[in-house]
Amino acid sequence: MYFLEGQSAAMTRRVTAADVERFAEITGDRNPIHLDPAFAATTRFKRRIAHGLLTASYVSAVLGSELPGPGTIYLSQSLTFKAPVYIDDEITAKVTVLKYRADKQILTLRTECVNQDGVSVMEGQAVCLTSDLVAEEDGPAEAAS
Amino acid sequence: MYFLEGQSAAMTRRVTAADVERFAEITGDRNPIHLDPAFAATTRFKRRIAHGLLTASYVSAVLGSELPGPGTIYLSQSLTFKAPVYIDDEITAKVTVLKYRADKQILTLRTECVNQDGVSVMEGQAVCLTSDLVAEEDGPAEAAS
Repeated sequence: MYFLEGQSAAMTRRVTAADVERFAEITGDRNPIHLDPAFAATTRFKRRIAHGLLTASYVSAVLGSELPGPGTIYLSQSLTFKAPVYIDDEITAKVTVLKYRADKQILTLRTECVNQDGVSVMEGQAVCLTSDLVAEEDGPAEAAS
Repeated sequence: MYFLEGQSAAMTRRVTAADVERFAEITGDRNPIHLDPAFAATTRFKRRIAHGLLTASYVSAVLGSELPGPGTIYLSQSLTFKAPVYIDDEITAKVTVLKYRADKQILTLRTECVNQDGVSVMEGQAVCLTSDLVAEEDGPAEAAS
């Protein structure tokens, strides 16, 4: 298993109202800026925005399924929220290898989410441990989908 | 609205298997380390761990409901995952004011999650914009619960 600088992977997902509401239920984050259209109308955004950590989780999905892949272990993540994500936005999460320390099996990646208009909504950096990755030859195919 | 250095708030939540499964559904993060007991048994953790960003979201819940409160807008979050979070762990997310820049209405907080044994599982720092907070006198009571 080795990773090369510049190697990248991406996934696109639409942010549905149902996903935002379920995210609020399972995390307890019931900030009305995400859930209450009347309140959201009074804010700078004028309408509901998705939870920042829901968008961030699309990055985790790429890490855990594509690069470095199933079995990856998160060590750290930095997140800067640059622009709002609205309900029904299509978010593409992309991760790009910055460096791989093979002796420690530690992978550092640049992480970014862009919306359907190409606007960068989130940027950051992830560090992952790759020592428990599913081996390619015996990995369950359904886990990598 | 003003915030004082050292001011803090916390919330505790149990990580259920159902929450981990629903988190995987709405984020697309189907890393088998979170979902597949047989695979998880082969890893250093020996059993399923929760998604790091699910734990992180408990911090967002405190920010969005307690301190600074409903209407807060996330600007950035750093996360270091220090220890695994297992199914049925009880996680307390705590946020503590580090500084408040009143002219820009920007609040910086230390963020930490500890498990039921007092082990720190996650640490980081959050930066929030407080200019769109629900005013205390007209805020919807249910949104702050």
